[in-house]
Amino acid sequence: MSIHGGDVYRNHVDIDFSINVNPLGTPQCVKEALHRAVEMCGKYPDMEAERLGKAVSTFLGVPKEYLLFGNGASELFMAIVRGLNPKKVVIPVPSFYGYEYAAKSVDSEIIYYETTQENNFCVKEDMNRILTEDVDILFLANPGNPIGNLLDIEMMKKLLLHCRDKGIYVVVDECFIEFCGNQFSLLSEFRKYEHLIIVRTFTKIFTIPGVRIGYLVCKNKMVQTKIARQLPEWNLSCFAQEAGCICAKQAEFILKTKNFIEKERQYMEKGLMQIGLRTFPSVSNFITLYSDKPLYEKLLKRGILIRDCSNFRGLEKGFYRIAVKNRNENKMLLMTIESL
Amino acid sequence: MSIHGGDVYRNHVDIDFSINVNPLGTPQCVKEALHRAVEMCGKYPDMEAERLGKAVSTFLGVPKEYLLFGNGASELFMAIVRGLNPKKVVIPVPSFYGYEYAAKSVDSEIIYYETTQENNFCVKEDMNRILTEDVDILFLANPGNPIGNLLDIEMMKKLLLHCRDKGIYVVVDECFIEFCGNQFSLLSEFRKYEHLIIVRTFTKIFTIPGVRIGYLVCKNKMVQTKIARQLPEWNLSCFAQEAGCICAKQAEFILKTKNFIEKERQYMEKGLMQIGLRTFPSVSNFITLYSDKPLYEKLLKRGILIRDCSNFRGLEKGFYRIAVKNRNENKMLLMTIESL
Repeated sequence: MSIHGGDVYRNHVDIDFSINVNPLGTPQCVKEALHRAVEMCGKYPDMEAERLGKAVSTFLGVPKEYLLFGNGASELFMAIVRGLNPKKVVIPVPSFYGYEYAAKSVDSEIIYYETTQENNFCVKEDMNRILTEDVDILFLANPGNPIGNLLDIEMMKKLLLHCRDKGIYVVVDECFIEFCGNQFSLLSEFRKYEHLIIVRTFTKIFTIPGVRIGYLVCKNKMVQTKIARQLPEWNLSCFAQEAGCICAKQAEFILKTKNFIEKERQYMEKGLMQIGLRTFPSVSNFITLYSDKPLYEKLLKRGILIRDCSNFRGLEKGFYRIAVKNRNENKMLLMTIESL
Repeated sequence: MSIHGGDVYRNHVDIDFSINVNPLGTPQCVKEALHRAVEMCGKYPDMEAERLGKAVSTFLGVPKEYLLFGNGASELFMAIVRGLNPKKVVIPVPSFYGYEYAAKSVDSEIIYYETTQENNFCVKEDMNRILTEDVDILFLANPGNPIGNLLDIEMMKKLLLHCRDKGIYVVVDECFIEFCGNQFSLLSEFRKYEHLIIVRTFTKIFTIPGVRIGYLVCKNKMVQTKIARQLPEWNLSCFAQEAGCICAKQAEFILKTKNFIEKERQYMEKGLMQIGLRTFPSVSNFITLYSDKPLYEKLLKRGILIRDCSNFRGLEKGFYRIAVKNRNENKMLLMTIESL
């Protein structure tokens, strides 16, 4: 079994519920930008990503000098640990495997903070007790993956102060933030904290995982320089730069997606409840559920791929993550599960 | 002044002689593959690069398990130094800045081997004397950049044995090898040496610097695992994978290019000699020359960008690298230089 979802290369899959991108698909204008980029591939991509920097700066309302771009968020997680070289990191579980992958690449010791089913797998203030002075980096996700739950903003403010006191960098993964809305983002706080690094991507909201583009926001110039130094030269393709410039202008599409997802997620939650499956509160474009049945295998036989979460650290057999897709697909998944 | 050529983003440039890609341009079939890839960008790229691996394996006649792919050769140089973590590296100069950039990212000590103008900047067997047991990695290029000269194969065989005895990994950059022919490649030797890593790219020969795709060949499984562990997940975009599969089938285009370059390079060498400029022997698609005049500034005023090599370690003011382009452009460059 794969450590990530979406392995449609070695499975026969008709509908992929394992990958959690936008069910509205890649906007036509982004595809057009990618086609235009084909004509630019004969030039070296702009190492300073000038146009992209300006576009994303406007999109976020964040000065260009606080931004750094990567070949996907995954490259940025690697560059962060290389730049900061942590001896010890804290990762709440369950969470995206990428933080662990990055931390292990620099042989960092990893302390796992176990969230509990009773708390709906939310990070709580008691995390403080393991955030001691010997910890160098705390990884968090907002919203989290695979659960899709938000960080409590008041708790986060306290946690940020605590980490500042202890000299701990806080890396917040906001790769899914657009699905629930910018008002929940920690972006409002980044100017106050020199030790806060927010990582984001256009991958999920614009359904462009094949393009590879992510970015981070950090106020601390020294930290940013250290991270940048670990990025290969020309790490951003012309496709990433062209698509990124267009993505940064799609505020309307993001709003439309947010409303669409809210409605479909509620439809799915209700449907799954009616089937008698337990789900966990999500604000994002995916839902984690619990079932006694071998859902993964049974659905795959019918050409439907879902994410078996049993290999997520902190989860066990019986947990599955499904993407929220469009109504027809969602309805079909519910009907298929019910028929098993 | 930029540390690399090709900054057409912050200069007004009509003809770019600073970037050394194929003057025949990107083959139409590669562009078509890139357009097809746009329709695949909604899926996560294959982490195992299965199709690409097979295609390049056939192209090189090298088993798939000896190959590793990167987001450009530049990512592979970074991953190599991270995976092998050298305390000390040897780099001949002048050479591509990327080796130094990579070595410095892991705070490696760098010993520069200075080639001489009298030797046409070729690496000679006397390099042995600095290849002592405390050296961990030797970087070489075949052909070299900015000169375009080949490594002598008999000298290399001796050097490889010497490095094996001393426990030194040898990284050979063959990013331009297709311009002079595979018979000069060290690929014929890789099966004999566990400490040899050959790095290549489709960037130069297929004029796709914007796509980002490179690969390495190494027989040593442990070394390969160490390097792979330093690559971000999903480092290869769908564009790199689709284009790469097609590039690997263009043997005819490569041959055509080689013949074209040979003819045009000879034309340029002759023309530059007639103008009274000194050039250095090259087998590749670029030529380094020496001039007392401020060629860079003078040509830029006429919309022609060449590579000022004065910031290459081991070179000085007066050295310039020009790409070999098509006849009209080459003729125009010669006429413009003559008129200055």
